[in-house]
Amino acid sequence: MAQERIGFIGLGIMGQPMCLNLLKAGFSLTVYNRTPARMQPVLQAGAVAAASAKQAAERSSIVITMVTDTPDVEQVLFGHDGVMQGLKANSVVIDMSTISPSATQRMAAQIKEKGSQMLDAPVSGGDVGAKAGTLAIMVGGEAQTLERCRPVLEAMGKTITHVGGHGMGQTVKLCNQILVSVTNLAVCEAVRFAQRSGVDPRVMIEAVKNGAAGSWQLSNLGPRMAAGDFAPGFMIDLQQKDLRLALQSAFEMQLPSPGLSLVHQLFSACQARGEGREGTQALIKSLLALTQKPAKEN
Amino acid sequence: MAQERIGFIGLGIMGQPMCLNLLKAGFSLTVYNRTPARMQPVLQAGAVAAASAKQAAERSSIVITMVTDTPDVEQVLFGHDGVMQGLKANSVVIDMSTISPSATQRMAAQIKEKGSQMLDAPVSGGDVGAKAGTLAIMVGGEAQTLERCRPVLEAMGKTITHVGGHGMGQTVKLCNQILVSVTNLAVCEAVRFAQRSGVDPRVMIEAVKNGAAGSWQLSNLGPRMAAGDFAPGFMIDLQQKDLRLALQSAFEMQLPSPGLSLVHQLFSACQARGEGREGTQALIKSLLALTQKPAKEN
Repeated sequence: MAQERIGFIGLGIMGQPMCLNLLKAGFSLTVYNRTPARMQPVLQAGAVAAASAKQAAERSSIVITMVTDTPDVEQVLFGHDGVMQGLKANSVVIDMSTISPSATQRMAAQIKEKGSQMLDAPVSGGDVGAKAGTLAIMVGGEAQTLERCRPVLEAMGKTITHVGGHGMGQTVKLCNQILVSVTNLAVCEAVRFAQRSGVDPRVMIEAVKNGAAGSWQLSNLGPRMAAGDFAPGFMIDLQQKDLRLALQSAFEMQLPSPGLSLVHQLFSACQARGEGREGTQALIKSLLALTQKPAKEN
Repeated sequence: MAQERIGFIGLGIMGQPMCLNLLKAGFSLTVYNRTPARMQPVLQAGAVAAASAKQAAERSSIVITMVTDTPDVEQVLFGHDGVMQGLKANSVVIDMSTISPSATQRMAAQIKEKGSQMLDAPVSGGDVGAKAGTLAIMVGGEAQTLERCRPVLEAMGKTITHVGGHGMGQTVKLCNQILVSVTNLAVCEAVRFAQRSGVDPRVMIEAVKNGAAGSWQLSNLGPRMAAGDFAPGFMIDLQQKDLRLALQSAFEMQLPSPGLSLVHQLFSACQARGEGREGTQALIKSLLALTQKPAKEN
């Protein structure tokens, strides 16, 4: 199992714990991060540092990328000193970032031309799931490539679902984000309706959560809205990045998504008020703000 | 327990099975329905027919109303030959219809002036829950009135939740409908996004339903949307009536509810296309219709 040599690029809040789980599973691991200091905890746990994405690829048979956005993945793979300059034939690039499905398809084709394979394997479960090794991983690409990489993915996640061809892991991740955010709006409006009517929203949530109105968002974010607790589980700035990707894809497909569009606008208002680093439950503040007199023009 | 004599007004698709459960629990039951034929199954099971709402009230200590809308309840209670003309002092009126919270508060005050009490006790669970006696009942009104009526409600429902004062049962029911319908829109947009991207929506649903994207609507209506099954669980025409009540209440409270408003408009489009008697999952057809060329002006 540990015969594959893993390269890992992007040691952020998700990448670091994912690397620690790969080391725990016995994989040989070479890491690269643009800001070298962030590699330290993983190097102390037994990983080897590379000087570039290219060098990480030279030393690996499977290269994992976990960065922020589409241009970051493109830069890491195809840029100067990038993965493609070091990648050996018959390797696999697994992109676990959340990025554009159509850009993913273009990258997968370019990688295939060079004699290697790509999987898109975005995750859900947040940093809590990354630490616990319980991420849900949605995989797009060829089935035999997934089978080769399955032990690697199993070191980081609990449910690994093959959802289709290249880009379709990203598509399902964006479906996940559409569901999460429009359902969040449903919870905001119900909590506000209860509050304004003089009903304790916690009583309302308990009364309806086990029926057709029930959702993870209601059970988990509803009580935080009611308590005025806006600490981040998942941050608005990150949610907005994913919703922008979903809207861009919808635009490319000429697919109207009025609910998604609305919630993106209301989150934009959160960001304008400086709440981008609060949890997504702070969406409710955009409904509150609508009925308060603005202090000044700006 | 069977010392209370029950009057029941409104023997529709919900009222009939609720009456059968009251009889099964041993209550003495007098029924009235504007269309007499609809009383037959309940009379055969042991209920007594009244000639008017007034007469049903004269023979009862607890009068239950289960009719369509706010004006129907007002007519049955305060109209000619209505409940208030026959109601004895120290009786209880339990309105189990879904109607306006503010109108409910006004009616409760009028009933109190006459020496009786009102509970608003709308239900969720549909005709399936009504038959099985497993309705969720959301009760507004005084706690001691609820305690008096609890055995009666327990004959019809499984969870009886006291959510606050007069009208607040209705408020919680409308919160339930806001949650149900905006979450439904989330599911529609995710299913369309998957379909248009070439991902099987059933695979998408399985991949995400156990995480933060999960909801009753996703697990139950998503697969029906994917299969093109638009048979009614809950009918669009009935959903629209409840959303109109929610929007009216929001308007009275000057509470912006943009998601609710949007989904109400998209359901209106379903109704314009003649889909009012289909299930609420047919909401997805409004997204489909948006991208198809209209056949003619009308």
